[in-house]
Amino acid sequence: MSDFKTPLRDMQFVLHEMLNAEQVLSALPSMEAVDAAIIDQVLDESGKFMGSVLAPLNAVGDEQGCTLNDDRSVTTPDGFADAYRQFVEAGWSSLSADPAFGGQGLPACVQIPVNEMMFACNQAWGMFVGLSQGAYKCLHTFGTPEQKQTYLTKLGAGEWTGTMCLTEPQAGTDLGLLRSKAEPQGDGAYRLTGQKIFISAGEHDLADNIVHLVLARLPDAPAGTRGISLFVVPKFLPDENGEAGERNAIYCSGLEEKMGIHGSPTCQISLEGATGWLVGEPNKGLPAMFVMMNEARLGVGLEAQGLSVGAYQKAVAYAKDRIQGKSPVVPRDKDRPADPIIQHPDVRRMLLTQKAYIEGQRAMAYWTALLVDEAEHHPDAEHRKQAHALVELLTPVVKAFLTDNALICTNLAIQCLGGYGYIREYGVEQYFRDARIKPIYEGTNGIQAMDLLGRKVLMDGGERLQLLSRHIEQDIAAASQTHPDKARAVGELLEQTGEFTRWIGGQVQDSPAEAPAAAVDYLRAMAHLIVSSLWLRAAHIATTRLEAGDDRAFYQSKLDTADFYFARLLPEAHYHLQAGRAGAASLMSLAEEAF
Amino acid sequence: MSDFKTPLRDMQFVLHEMLNAEQVLSALPSMEAVDAAIIDQVLDESGKFMGSVLAPLNAVGDEQGCTLNDDRSVTTPDGFADAYRQFVEAGWSSLSADPAFGGQGLPACVQIPVNEMMFACNQAWGMFVGLSQGAYKCLHTFGTPEQKQTYLTKLGAGEWTGTMCLTEPQAGTDLGLLRSKAEPQGDGAYRLTGQKIFISAGEHDLADNIVHLVLARLPDAPAGTRGISLFVVPKFLPDENGEAGERNAIYCSGLEEKMGIHGSPTCQISLEGATGWLVGEPNKGLPAMFVMMNEARLGVGLEAQGLSVGAYQKAVAYAKDRIQGKSPVVPRDKDRPADPIIQHPDVRRMLLTQKAYIEGQRAMAYWTALLVDEAEHHPDAEHRKQAHALVELLTPVVKAFLTDNALICTNLAIQCLGGYGYIREYGVEQYFRDARIKPIYEGTNGIQAMDLLGRKVLMDGGERLQLLSRHIEQDIAAASQTHPDKARAVGELLEQTGEFTRWIGGQVQDSPAEAPAAAVDYLRAMAHLIVSSLWLRAAHIATTRLEAGDDRAFYQSKLDTADFYFARLLPEAHYHLQAGRAGAASLMSLAEEAF
Repeated sequence: MSDFKTPLRDMQFVLHEMLNAEQVLSALPSMEAVDAAIIDQVLDESGKFMGSVLAPLNAVGDEQGCTLNDDRSVTTPDGFADAYRQFVEAGWSSLSADPAFGGQGLPACVQIPVNEMMFACNQAWGMFVGLSQGAYKCLHTFGTPEQKQTYLTKLGAGEWTGTMCLTEPQAGTDLGLLRSKAEPQGDGAYRLTGQKIFISAGEHDLADNIVHLVLARLPDAPAGTRGISLFVVPKFLPDENGEAGERNAIYCSGLEEKMGIHGSPTCQISLEGATGWLVGEPNKGLPAMFVMMNEARLGVGLEAQGLSVGAYQKAVAYAKDRIQGKSPVVPRDKDRPADPIIQHPDVRRMLLTQKAYIEGQRAMAYWTALLVDEAEHHPDAEHRKQAHALVELLTPVVKAFLTDNALICTNLAIQCLGGYGYIREYGVEQYFRDARIKPIYEGTNGIQAMDLLGRKVLMDGGERLQLLSRHIEQDIAAASQTHPDKARAVGELLEQTGEFTRWIGGQVQDSPAEAPAAAVDYLRAMAHLIVSSLWLRAAHIATTRLEAGDDRAFYQSKLDTADFYFARLLPEAHYHLQAGRAGAASLMSLAEEAF
Repeated sequence: MSDFKTPLRDMQFVLHEMLNAEQVLSALPSMEAVDAAIIDQVLDESGKFMGSVLAPLNAVGDEQGCTLNDDRSVTTPDGFADAYRQFVEAGWSSLSADPAFGGQGLPACVQIPVNEMMFACNQAWGMFVGLSQGAYKCLHTFGTPEQKQTYLTKLGAGEWTGTMCLTEPQAGTDLGLLRSKAEPQGDGAYRLTGQKIFISAGEHDLADNIVHLVLARLPDAPAGTRGISLFVVPKFLPDENGEAGERNAIYCSGLEEKMGIHGSPTCQISLEGATGWLVGEPNKGLPAMFVMMNEARLGVGLEAQGLSVGAYQKAVAYAKDRIQGKSPVVPRDKDRPADPIIQHPDVRRMLLTQKAYIEGQRAMAYWTALLVDEAEHHPDAEHRKQAHALVELLTPVVKAFLTDNALICTNLAIQCLGGYGYIREYGVEQYFRDARIKPIYEGTNGIQAMDLLGRKVLMDGGERLQLLSRHIEQDIAAASQTHPDKARAVGELLEQTGEFTRWIGGQVQDSPAEAPAAAVDYLRAMAHLIVSSLWLRAAHIATTRLEAGDDRAFYQSKLDTADFYFARLLPEAHYHLQAGRAGAASLMSLAEEAF
C-alpha cells in the first residue's frame, strides 16, 4: 500500500487561515455554497483516493513505460486504465468542470490542491488528467456552442481525454516556425497534415476518444506567429449522437524514450489528412493557445509541487528511520552507537529546505488559483480585472519557481537517502527524473522569466506590479508588531525589487538584450519576494493563534519553518538581484567561436 | 564517431601558464624530465583515444547496463571489455604507476587531466579504471613489500582491477557500524565473512582478476571506528607465479538498479569465508582507508568535471546549430525568421555558467594534483608538508564543489536543448543521471563540508587556511593593477571567509551543532574564494599576454569568461556566508514530529 499522507492540515492553513477562501468564494455567485467543510471533505477524500489507487502504480508506470503497437495504438502500464476508470467513476474528473456541461463546478482553489496530491502520487498518470483539464479550458473559452456541447460533456465526464499539439521538430519555443497545414474542405471542416512531436497523452488506452487541439496554418496565412490557427481534431469523429465514430487520420508514429515520466506516452503525432474544425478565429490560434497555456503553466507548477511533496514525504520517513552517526545535540550514550539521521543538523537543513519551499509555494499557488476563481466569477468587473492582472503576473512565477525548486527539493530528498536515494528500490530517484521535464515544457523557465519581466511587468508600466506590491505591503503592515525583523526583510526586498524594475525599465529602450539578460534572476528574486510575504503572513497568523493558545505544536512548527526560510533561503534573493544587474554585456561579449 | 573535443588549449593554459607545472615538476627528482612537450603529447594522445574508443560506448553502456549471470559472474555492455583491452595495450593504465613496479611514473597533474577526458567520454567505463587507481594508491602506501610486488605490478599493468569494499546495509556514512568479520587462520591469512553493498566494479569481465580492498573486524576488535581493519581479498588467489589461481569465496550476489552509470556494475558482495590478508596494522583500517579516500575524493571531483565537460560540449554544439527565435542583438532581417539560440542572452547565461565553472574548477583540481605531486616527491620535507596540508584542505572542496556543480552544469546543458535535452536520443540527459551519484559517494557532500570545516580548518587552529590565504594574497597582489575590481572582490571574500571562520571557531566549544549546521554553506563560500582567486590569476595572465599581442582570441575569451564569473557567479558566495551564519537553532528548533 501507499504511504502517501494527505497534507490536510497544511492545506487547511493556507486555504482557510491565510487566504480565507470560504469568504472569498462566498462573493462568487456560482460558488457561494462552497464552504470550508466541503473543501475539507473533497481534500480528504481525494487524498485517500490518490494515495490508495494512484500511488501504488507510480513505480509500475516508471518501470513498464508505454508501448507503441504495430497498429499505432499505445498500451499504458498495467493498472493505469483501471485506475482511470475508478477515477472517472468516483467523479474526480468533473470536479471543477462547468455545471452547464455536467460538471460539479468546484473552484480552482479546490482543484489545484487535488491536482497537487494526484501529482504527488503518480506524476505520469496525472498528466492524462492535467492535459484534459487544459483542453477543457481552451474549448470552454474559445469553442462554438456546438463544440462545447460535443466536447465539454465528454471531457468533463472523463470519457474522452485531451491533448495540446503545438511543438514540431523545427518549432519548439518558437512556434512561429511551425508548418502543419489546414486546408478548408468547404463544409466547415479542415483537412490537416503535418508532424507534431512531444505530444503528451497523444495516444493511449485510457479513454474512448482523444480530443487533440492542434496548431496549424491556413493556406493563405501570414508567416510567423500571426498565421497560426487552432483546430480541434478528435481521434474518432463524433457521430450524430455525439459518440466516438469514424477513426480520424491522426496517428501516433513514435514514442520518445526519455529520462522520466515513463508512464506518460510522449508521442510523435502524424496528421495524415485528418479532419478538424477551427476553434476561435482564423490566424488567432496562438493568442487562444496562450490563454489556455496560462492555466496549463499554473498546472505544471502544481505537477512540480506534487513531486516535491512526494519526495519529501519519503525523505522524512527515511530520515526518522535510518540510524547513522552520532548527533551533536543528543547526549552521548554508550548503548546507542548512532542516532536517527533526522537529528543531524545538515539532514535537517536539507529537509527544512524542502518543507519551507513546499509550504511557501503552496500558499503562492493556492492564492493564484483563488485569484483565477475571482477573475472568472466575481460579479464586479473591476475586481475581476484586478484578479486577472495578478494571475497574469503570478503564473510565470509559479511555473518557474515551483519547477526549478522541484529539482532542488527532489535532489535534496535523494541526498537525504545517500546511496539508497540513487537506486530504484527506494523510489525517490524517480521523482527527480520525473521532475526534470518540468522546467522545460509549457514554455521553458527562461521563457517564463521573459514573459514576467517583459510582458507582465514592463509592458503595462508596472501596473500589475503595483497591485502585487499593495498586497505585500498589507502583509508587512499586519506583521510589523508581531514579526518586525521579518517584516523589514520583506520590505527591503520589495524596495530593491522595485529599484531593479525601474533600472531595467530604463535600459530596455536602448538595449533590447538587457531584459532577457536579467529575466531569470529577476524572476527568482520576485518569487522570493512573494513567498517571503506569504511566510510573513503565516508567521503572523501563527503568533496570533499561539497567543490565543490554539494547537501549539502546529503553529510553533509554522514559526520555526518561517524562521528557517527567512534565515537560510530568502537571502538568495539578494544574490539574484546582484547577478541580474550585471547587465547583458557580461553575456554577449564572448565570441561565439570561444564557446 | 565521437564528437568529443580535447580541451587541449584550456588544459595547457592551466598547467603551463597558471601553474607552471614544468617548473614545479623540475624540482621533483623522479619527475624532472616531465616537460611541457611530454605533457602536451600525453594529453593530446589520450584525448584522441578517449574520444574514439570510449565515447562511442557511452550510450551503449547506458542502454544495456550490466548483467548478473546465474554463475554470479557479471557481463559488461558490448564493447566495454574490448575497449579495456585497447586501453591497457596502449599503456594508459600504467601512466602514473610507480616505475618500481613497471609504471610510467607520470605525475598526478598529468593523470588528472587524462582522467577528466576519460570521464567526459564514458563515465561508467572510466569508473573501472578510477577504482583501480584508488586500490593501487592504497596498497602502494600501506601494503607489505610482498603485497606490493604481487598486486601493484598487475594493477599497474591493468591485468587486474581493484575495488573498495566499505559500505554495508547498516553502515554507510557511519562505517563504525560495520559488521563484516575477519578471523585469523594461523598462517597469516584471514577468513572473511559478511555482506557489502554499493561496490562499484565489484564483479565484471574486463580483467583476469579483481583485487578487493575490504574493511572488516578482527575477533577481538573494539566497537566503532577503532576496531576496523583493512584486508586485501583477491577474487582469484595469486598462485606461486603471482598469476590468478584458485577462485576465492567472494561473490557478487546482486546488482543495483539505479538512475545512471548503468555501465558500471554496482554490486552486492558476499564474503563467504573468503581468504584475505591484512593491509597495514590491525584496527587501523579506517585511517588507512581515509588516506586512499582522499585520493579517491579528488578522483570523484574529476569524474564530475568530466560529466560537466561532456554535457557542455554537446550543449554548445546544439546551441550553435539550433535556429529558434530572434536574438535581440542581431539586426532584424525578413529573410531570416530566427537565429541560432547561442545568440540569445539567456542561452549564453546557461552556457557561460558551465564554461566558467568548468574552467575555474579545472584550475583548482589541477593545482590540487600538482600539490599531490609535490607532497609526495619534493626533496624538502617542509615543502612536502605544506603541499600535503593544502591537499588536505583542497580535497573536500574539489569533491563537493565539482560534484554539486556537475548537477548544475549538466542540468543547464539539458535546459539548453529544451525538450530534446530530456530524451535519450540526444545523449545529454545521461550526463545528468550519471552525475547524480557523485555528491553521494566517497563521502556525501555534507560529510565533505564537515571534514573541511571541522578537521581541515578548525582542528589545526587555522594553519592550513593560513597557507591557502597566502596563495590567494599573492594572486590579489599580482593583479591589483591589471584587475583592481576583481582583486578587491577576492580580497573582500577572503576577509569575510576569515571572519566567518573566527566566528564559527568561537561557537564550537559550547555548541557542537554549530559547525555541522554551517559546514555546507562554508564549503561553498570557500570554493568560490579559491576559484575566484584562480580566475583572478587567469585574468591577470590574459591581460599580460594581450598586451604582448599574443593569441588575441584565446586570451580575450579568458577575460570575458572571468568577467562573467565575477559578475554572475561569485556573488553567490555572499549568500552562503549569510545563510551559514544563521546558526544551528534555525535547523534544530523544529520538533521531529513536525517534519
